Amino acid sequence: MELSVSVGVSNHHVHLTEEIYNKLFDEPMTKKKDLKQTGQFASNQVVTIKTEKFEIPNVRVLGPCRNYSQIEISKTDARKLGIDPPVRNSKELDDALTVTLVTPKASIDVKGCIIAKRHIHMSANQAAELGIENLHPIKLIINGDKGGILYGVVKVSERGVLEAHIDTDEAAAMGLNNDDIIEVEI
Amino acid sequence: MELSVSVGVSNHHVHLTEEIYNKLFDEPMTKKKDLKQTGQFASNQVVTIKTEKFEIPNVRVLGPCRNYSQIEISKTDARKLGIDPPVRNSKELDDALTVTLVTPKASIDVKGCIIAKRHIHMSANQAAELGIENLHPIKLIINGDKGGILYGVVKVSERGVLEAHIDTDEAAAMGLNNDDIIEVEI
Repeated sequence: MELSVSVGVSNHHVHLTEEIYNKLFDEPMTKKKDLKQTGQFASNQVVTIKTEKFEIPNVRVLGPCRNYSQIEISKTDARKLGIDPPVRNSKELDDALTVTLVTPKASIDVKGCIIAKRHIHMSANQAAELGIENLHPIKLIINGDKGGILYGVVKVSERGVLEAHIDTDEAAAMGLNNDDIIEVEI
Repeated sequence: MELSVSVGVSNHHVHLTEEIYNKLFDEPMTKKKDLKQTGQFASNQVVTIKTEKFEIPNVRVLGPCRNYSQIEISKTDARKLGIDPPVRNSKELDDALTVTLVTPKASIDVKGCIIAKRHIHMSANQAAELGIENLHPIKLIINGDKGGILYGVVKVSERGVLEAHIDTDEAAAMGLNNDDIIEVEI
């Protein structure tokens, strides 16, 4: 079975718990832009991700706060930072790496650095209609000069909106841009 | 049919004609390191690739000189440089872009900037044994957390050595490193 799905290219970003957010910022989180996933937004707040080797400034905080802190970077970012985080789904943070998050207010070590596994978002209703469950394996089918197939999973949530999330390395490798339409084999 | 092939990750690099080389350098080209492809080498010479938007320093000149000049960059490099070169095989330079190559000696506009199409090298003998010709389509099959399939072509040459060439974007996207072994479907 194949679905047509629009692409969202995720640059490095962080999700923070309220506790960590309040350690890093004095002001409340403010919305810069809604994301396609219902209720999710890019905030005006940014942090620096820092390791012994390198630092990446202006990393966007996504809102709202979650009950876990998660730092999502690409393999290219990881190489610059001199670390090798695992490829994981959201919340699978048992072996996530610890990096330092820095703002003008504070500098805090946070365990939660991963490379996000490629995924498509989908609502619980749509998943039920398709007869599939959370983390069902999928294939992203990409045409064009840099075509190929990327393996990933489905992420099912109550208010999920159909969208394929890949990172900046994957977008560059496959010649994809935001809002491109690809076929996804379920 | 499947072959086991070792991976070579190509960072941005340039091939130059003797004429262009001599405009850019006073000294003869000297070898830094042999490459796997017979007779090919990384030289000690580097250039800067420059556009109106950005410049990338320390781009390696590969030797020996060729009868065409070719500047091979990744999609990520292209975005930084603010250009959109075509994805092409070597020597297919009709619609290659023009960029400026800079050394302490000179600054020259050269038409020849492409994003290299993924390929495996192979000797003419091996291709004949397999019953395939130059530019035969292939699939690079990559396992692991960032697994998938990349489409490419076979490049046949008299002294070709079996090796899969991908760029730094593709290596990062698929979690591959130099000398990894992958399966290639012919």
